Amino acid sequence: MALKSPEEFEKSLKDRKQLNIFMNGKRVDDIFENRNTRTVIEANKASYAWALDPEYRDLMTCHSPLIEDVVNRYTHVSGSVEDLIKKAEIGTFTAEMLGTCIYRCVGYDAFHSLASTTWEMQRDLGKEYHERFLEYLKMVQREDLSVAGALTEPRGKRSQKVLDWPDPYLSLKVVDRDKNGIYVRGAKINISGAYASNELVVLPQAAHYEGEEDYSIAFAIPTDTEGITYICQYSPYSAERDMAEDLSELGNPIYGQRETSMIVFDNVFVPWERVFMCGEYQYAGKMVARFARTHRMTCGGTCKVGFMNQIIGACKLIQEYKGLEKATHINEELMEMVVLRETCRACGMAAAQKGSEVPKGSGVYLPDELMGNVSKLNVCNSFWRVMALAGDIGGGLIVTMPSLKDLRNPETKDYMEEFYSFGSDVPTENILKVHKLLQHWTAGMHGVGTWHGAGPVMTQKIMLQRVIDYEHDKEIVKKILNIK
Amino acid sequence: MALKSPEEFEKSLKDRKQLNIFMNGKRVDDIFENRNTRTVIEANKASYAWALDPEYRDLMTCHSPLIEDVVNRYTHVSGSVEDLIKKAEIGTFTAEMLGTCIYRCVGYDAFHSLASTTWEMQRDLGKEYHERFLEYLKMVQREDLSVAGALTEPRGKRSQKVLDWPDPYLSLKVVDRDKNGIYVRGAKINISGAYASNELVVLPQAAHYEGEEDYSIAFAIPTDTEGITYICQYSPYSAERDMAEDLSELGNPIYGQRETSMIVFDNVFVPWERVFMCGEYQYAGKMVARFARTHRMTCGGTCKVGFMNQIIGACKLIQEYKGLEKATHINEELMEMVVLRETCRACGMAAAQKGSEVPKGSGVYLPDELMGNVSKLNVCNSFWRVMALAGDIGGGLIVTMPSLKDLRNPETKDYMEEFYSFGSDVPTENILKVHKLLQHWTAGMHGVGTWHGAGPVMTQKIMLQRVIDYEHDKEIVKKILNIK
Amino acid sequence: MALKSPEEFEKSLKDRKQLNIFMNGKRVDDIFENRNTRTVIEANKASYAWALDPEYRDLMTCHSPLIEDVVNRYTHVSGSVEDLIKKAEIGTFTAEMLGTCIYRCVGYDAFHSLASTTWEMQRDLGKEYHERFLEYLKMVQREDLSVAGALTEPRGKRSQKVLDWPDPYLSLKVVDRDKNGIYVRGAKINISGAYASNELVVLPQAAHYEGEEDYSIAFAIPTDTEGITYICQYSPYSAERDMAEDLSELGNPIYGQRETSMIVFDNVFVPWERVFMCGEYQYAGKMVARFARTHRMTCGGTCKVGFMNQIIGACKLIQEYKGLEKATHINEELMEMVVLRETCRACGMAAAQKGSEVPKGSGVYLPDELMGNVSKLNVCNSFWRVMALAGDIGGGLIVTMPSLKDLRNPETKDYMEEFYSFGSDVPTENILKVHKLLQHWTAGMHGVGTWHGAGPVMTQKIMLQRVIDYEHDKEIVKKILNIK
Amino acid sequence: MALKSPEEFEKSLKDRKQLNIFMNGKRVDDIFENRNTRTVIEANKASYAWALDPEYRDLMTCHSPLIEDVVNRYTHVSGSVEDLIKKAEIGTFTAEMLGTCIYRCVGYDAFHSLASTTWEMQRDLGKEYHERFLEYLKMVQREDLSVAGALTEPRGKRSQKVLDWPDPYLSLKVVDRDKNGIYVRGAKINISGAYASNELVVLPQAAHYEGEEDYSIAFAIPTDTEGITYICQYSPYSAERDMAEDLSELGNPIYGQRETSMIVFDNVFVPWERVFMCGEYQYAGKMVARFARTHRMTCGGTCKVGFMNQIIGACKLIQEYKGLEKATHINEELMEMVVLRETCRACGMAAAQKGSEVPKGSGVYLPDELMGNVSKLNVCNSFWRVMALAGDIGGGLIVTMPSLKDLRNPETKDYMEEFYSFGSDVPTENILKVHKLLQHWTAGMHGVGTWHGAGPVMTQKIMLQRVIDYEHDKEIVKKILNIK
Repeated sequence: MALKSPEEFEKSLKDRKQLNIFMNGKRVDDIFENRNTRTVIEANKASYAWALDPEYRDLMTCHSPLIEDVVNRYTHVSGSVEDLIKKAEIGTFTAEMLGTCIYRCVGYDAFHSLASTTWEMQRDLGKEYHERFLEYLKMVQREDLSVAGALTEPRGKRSQKVLDWPDPYLSLKVVDRDKNGIYVRGAKINISGAYASNELVVLPQAAHYEGEEDYSIAFAIPTDTEGITYICQYSPYSAERDMAEDLSELGNPIYGQRETSMIVFDNVFVPWERVFMCGEYQYAGKMVARFARTHRMTCGGTCKVGFMNQIIGACKLIQEYKGLEKATHINEELMEMVVLRETCRACGMAAAQKGSEVPKGSGVYLPDELMGNVSKLNVCNSFWRVMALAGDIGGGLIVTMPSLKDLRNPETKDYMEEFYSFGSDVPTENILKVHKLLQHWTAGMHGVGTWHGAGPVMTQKIMLQRVIDYEHDKEIVKKILNIK
Repeated sequence: MALKSPEEFEKSLKDRKQLNIFMNGKRVDDIFENRNTRTVIEANKASYAWALDPEYRDLMTCHSPLIEDVVNRYTHVSGSVEDLIKKAEIGTFTAEMLGTCIYRCVGYDAFHSLASTTWEMQRDLGKEYHERFLEYLKMVQREDLSVAGALTEPRGKRSQKVLDWPDPYLSLKVVDRDKNGIYVRGAKINISGAYASNELVVLPQAAHYEGEEDYSIAFAIPTDTEGITYICQYSPYSAERDMAEDLSELGNPIYGQRETSMIVFDNVFVPWERVFMCGEYQYAGKMVARFARTHRMTCGGTCKVGFMNQIIGACKLIQEYKGLEKATHINEELMEMVVLRETCRACGMAAAQKGSEVPKGSGVYLPDELMGNVSKLNVCNSFWRVMALAGDIGGGLIVTMPSLKDLRNPETKDYMEEFYSFGSDVPTENILKVHKLLQHWTAGMHGVGTWHGAGPVMTQKIMLQRVIDYEHDKEIVKKILNIK
Repeated sequence: MALKSPEEFEKSLKDRKQLNIFMNGKRVDDIFENRNTRTVIEANKASYAWALDPEYRDLMTCHSPLIEDVVNRYTHVSGSVEDLIKKAEIGTFTAEMLGTCIYRCVGYDAFHSLASTTWEMQRDLGKEYHERFLEYLKMVQREDLSVAGALTEPRGKRSQKVLDWPDPYLSLKVVDRDKNGIYVRGAKINISGAYASNELVVLPQAAHYEGEEDYSIAFAIPTDTEGITYICQYSPYSAERDMAEDLSELGNPIYGQRETSMIVFDNVFVPWERVFMCGEYQYAGKMVARFARTHRMTCGGTCKVGFMNQIIGACKLIQEYKGLEKATHINEELMEMVVLRETCRACGMAAAQKGSEVPKGSGVYLPDELMGNVSKLNVCNSFWRVMALAGDIGGGLIVTMPSLKDLRNPETKDYMEEFYSFGSDVPTENILKVHKLLQHWTAGMHGVGTWHGAGPVMTQKIMLQRVIDYEHDKEIVKKILNIK
Repeated sequence: MALKSPEEFEKSLKDRKQLNIFMNGKRVDDIFENRNTRTVIEANKASYAWALDPEYRDLMTCHSPLIEDVVNRYTHVSGSVEDLIKKAEIGTFTAEMLGTCIYRCVGYDAFHSLASTTWEMQRDLGKEYHERFLEYLKMVQREDLSVAGALTEPRGKRSQKVLDWPDPYLSLKVVDRDKNGIYVRGAKINISGAYASNELVVLPQAAHYEGEEDYSIAFAIPTDTEGITYICQYSPYSAERDMAEDLSELGNPIYGQRETSMIVFDNVFVPWERVFMCGEYQYAGKMVARFARTHRMTCGGTCKVGFMNQIIGACKLIQEYKGLEKATHINEELMEMVVLRETCRACGMAAAQKGSEVPKGSGVYLPDELMGNVSKLNVCNSFWRVMALAGDIGGGLIVTMPSLKDLRNPETKDYMEEFYSFGSDVPTENILKVHKLLQHWTAGMHGVGTWHGAGPVMTQKIMLQRVIDYEHDKEIVKKILNIK
């Protein structure tokens, strides 16, 4: 069986070369020790543990026809509507267990796009991209690798075309090629969890046009490839984690907030067998769009259902701690959160249910384009609303709470216990922890992050403008009005 | 085969005794001639025509295991998730074809509740209600009857209990019973299409309690039963229909707006074989709740998808007539309507997909309670928003348009054609008709009607408060915070 | 004193020549008898009555420095912020008293734009437009005339420029001119109440450009001028009024819904002394914009506060009739309506408070451009929401209620009284009337009408894009970040 | 003149006794050095500087009739509508200059409530509370003291009454009294900026009832009074500030996020001349309500206008940096933020404009109750929406940005400058700083904080339920329907 244990996975990361990685103005010497990078390792490890856990393995694993073996679902390209439904469910499951990203998700969705688009390129152009990709994927499955994905780029002035940018490297670009492979320069930004994954799959961020061949590239590389530099995000939440005496003081103790980095490619070499597109600009847009429709179902859809589960659960506990079980307005707010959550769930599931083989004959199933985008649009607005409602229930304490360290300081302990008890029998520590969790959700990165994850609203709207078909609607009007 | 032709159905209505029916202060002598009652006949006839139409019959009919024959789906109790999915789809289909109620829908949903609840009553109490109901349903299927349903009642002061009302008949009540049957007095209000149906199924409106046995009743009667009086709604749209020279002047020429009546029961006799509950107050609430969860998926859910299709189609046509294809804000508004529609569709479909057998062993499948109610809540708000957006696209003309008669009056015809053309090549008549259709949708009964159809928002909220379970959400919070 | 009695006003209308006016496919022989045109006369008459009523005259009248006499405020151009505040208040007052348009409002606002823009044209171009306008306005004040205003035009394809339209008359156009005056052809559409006013003031609908001189016109004419044809709106509500036995059956018995007509100008002559712009296309946009900022404060702002007062009052009564005084959700909905209303009121008042002299030196005060447009945007969305909330409180009965005639029909009277009483002591007639009023508000023309009155949302957005200034906001950011 | 310089103010703080103050598990030895407590000192100092600055002193100061001298407006009780308007304006001004609380605001609003309520108590009960308060206020004005205010309390189970709580000190309580004064025990939570103010004014949090006399207390004490302990909030943003090498790395470098603490009163002595209520439970509710209506106009209203100015300015700069000046959707979003801001401004100003003397004869002017609460309700929802919109414009970078330290680290500097430039000529440092400011606003404490500042939504609703009067609305309905 191809499945690694969590420990084997961690060892595989340790076996890599030393990464070139920076955070908060300093080099990170050990990503296994650094409190913030560690959260990514823990989240990815969990996905290995679940795959071996009898309670979760039916969801986390499946049979791969490629290697005729059981694989972690995060390495499997959906071949049926049933697969897509499992994909939607796994998004919710991992999110509610981690309270943050499962960092294998972007790679998983990139596989879908690559499988579909390389198949089409091979069919249309006769190029061997699909074969290469399948070989690569088999390797990933056999070795049970964790694979991050990267699309977003710095870009230049939005009002200019790519070729008019003074700095040509604001989008990732081929700078040289030889018989062994290609050399690329540029950067990918906002990339989740790459440094704690085995591999990185790179797709273009956007459609490309004639003359932009050097920007029309897709490939995969090990995360310790020479020439790569990771510059990590550093937020107030990162600082808080660095300063904690004990992780239990934090809102999400083990898994933290989503960790990203800018990945700089400074003349990085990629061998041909790992290149899946190079110059075929006509397919760049498809590559992106197919990734997006896949990613919007989960990152833009069902994974936020899992996040909402945590938020709703925390609000319910606080309601109970405060003795507010009969407060109508709190019950209304909880209900509103549930309605928003179930609406998001329904849209995500519909994207799976209406999924289809793209292109016909490829064997690759993608979620429904229309419904995937509808799902993401609903999530964007719903998540902010859920934050507002949860903030109401959590109260000012979310903002004004002292550190849990003050609960342990003998000089303040008694006051803390007395005055943050709400008069309940629940240990004050639990009360503060649940509020800390809500702080993590409602007073941090999640509103903006959810909006932009899987692309901001405008990208969904652009896609919807392309795919909505009004002909049926016009026809029924003409029919009922007897208009020719 | 059990299926009637539309003409046979109309004849079956004509074969009834003269109804006691009033509208606009006068007795209706002939419901086949009266312009407003005629719309109901036409809508129901359409459901007979589709069942025989090769294009639609797969959706409109199914095999009934009860009579081992093909029946109109509107007489069939769902026995599987697949049946529920078809039920969701048929809601959209009939709505977009008619632009109003298919008047067989309430009866269809009442059958689901009766099948489920009488089965449970027979199991628990040993009473023969289920057998009676199945005999009745077989008759309906064999004779392919159109069956209306009735729940809503006048009720007394909302702050008083039923038994404290000075007038005991504000809820339908058994006033006498003998060995042949029961006698009931009271009224059902807001009842869609009953006078143009063959049969009427009556359920309680609400849960009942000890002492309210005489209010805990369910039964079926022919619509021409003695003692029944119909007092019909009369709206501005009714008046307009009465005054039209030609139906083509109207927004929905053939099928009109939804037509309802108050049905007064003045000591109406119901034979025991048509009585499906009588006194078992403990089951009254279940009877209502099971009807509601079934009705909310369609009337509260997918049927409004069909209405939105008409509205969106009309807006798209007007955009083209006005030469506004490139107007960003119009395209945004169209897209927003589509997003709302697809969200409603997804929730309705999810209610079907997550449907289940209720009670276990009964063979009766009902939509998911949680998702059915979520669906209705989304529809309520979405429909008003769609009206607002469509009103923006339709423009002031929706409000200020002259009659289509002015287009035919030689003294005004030329001005009408010149000044309502938008400079397009489309006949002005078509332009005005599409605006008239939007007037029907956005400046009439549909906002309020959609909100209240299948119960106002508060009823969904009450039901949601009952069914939402927060345990899972609390558990995952405790897990991630390591709280016992 | 210049003030007419209501009877004198009605006589002044009767003294006009026979109008060329059509409704519902027929010529209107007598606008005083026709039920629908009569509503406009009644609304305008009320404004004469209030001016003489000790209770209201402080609001309805003011001193005019032009004629040094007391005049109806609807003929007065605001000369101070205090005038603007009264203007905002009068909008609410007339709206809540009539439940429909006061038809003198567009003319009133057109006077503001004309006073401001002709002053500027005379200053810049030396043309005598301002003098002409003042002479005209003095006549209006002395004779206490009711003056309608007209801007909206049919227009051709929105994607084409005016000069490219195949039919040049889709915007009102000068077709000839001589030493006595000009001749115009075209139409104004959606015009409120013109046929029951003494005078009509005409402004352009939009900015114009070089080559469009013949479209850049403003003038005033008596409403019985030769060559004018009125083609009236005809809605379901018109039909209902036509069919009523007694006006008390209607939602707004005396004043009805807003009545409009298309006004066709078929080579209508306007003498030079009544022409206030002719060819100066550079001022057409200003003329429109100054009208709009004035009209948005009232028609787009405070007048809807008055409408909401009626809606809220009706909902409160129904709550009491039903015995729902303690229902939390109804109280929440009432409160939400009040919050929306007060927000609209605050924005309208702010537009007045921040009003200013435009142009400096002209003595003409206009509401604040930014706040006037903000006010209208809030009203658009709020009004639909108020309709939805009121529809919830009113219940299905708004849609399904029989005619009040059925309450008078001996065959149905007893049932009506029993079953529409809600078990209350209030006469059923009152209950039904209040529901009928809510039908008028929530199931009719008011959502769409409110959105488009004073221009649809897009026109406010365009104006806002022009006037919003971000410099201050950018400066404070640079300051706090110490950025140069 | 009574005005202190900023330096004199800081010295006055230094002259206090050592505070008993804790943060992040440790005692704070020096609040002037501690990075987080320092922000409060800086914000308060700014209010002293503005009062002496010719550019701002007209707004920041006024003449006090109490001491017949110029005083800082934050020590002045409004005596006219003009004063209230200035109060509204000063809220916006200080907020946009600081990007956080002006910590003198709660005390300022408490003065209004104390002036009004002690006047009424003295009138009704003959007690000398008003005289005491005026003496106290004169001292504050003469010495130009900074005064914090405290209301919110821990409280016990919300479902229990105060007297039923096992721990009686969850609300601040008199534990002893003698001829010199009273002794209190309990805590106030969520208190803004107290430790860096000279004085603390304490009001009850809620209405009190018979038997709760010991909870019905109002008083003022110096912030260094014996028996007081401050336990400070500690958020991720606090940690980030602690870890910064240089304040310029932070979103709001000088003034930070709002800083609060729990203030524990452990048998604190208050002399009688500083006690303004003690036992008169009938006035406790009024004391709170009058504070709330005053505070909602500013903290709940116009101060958020100032915050929005910063947010809008930052978004506009980012739009320019990215070259997105012509992007329709960005312009729409900016406009939507402006509309929300102006709506909040209009409501806040209306609360001032409609302010009145409360009670009549007291000389104390308070904002309008209805409009103050409407203002706060609008702000709650608007602020979250503004955050969402700003998050869209700011982009993923808000979440994923590295530290500004990485811009100074030679190993990463070049990459940072190249890849976070957006291809613009603006220094990358400025780009990152503006994003950091938006992180501070949209990914931190401000959504929840704004919702709860001046009380959560439910408290506004409760107040609105009390003050809304529907009689006028009902009357106009009866009039138009001719109902008696």
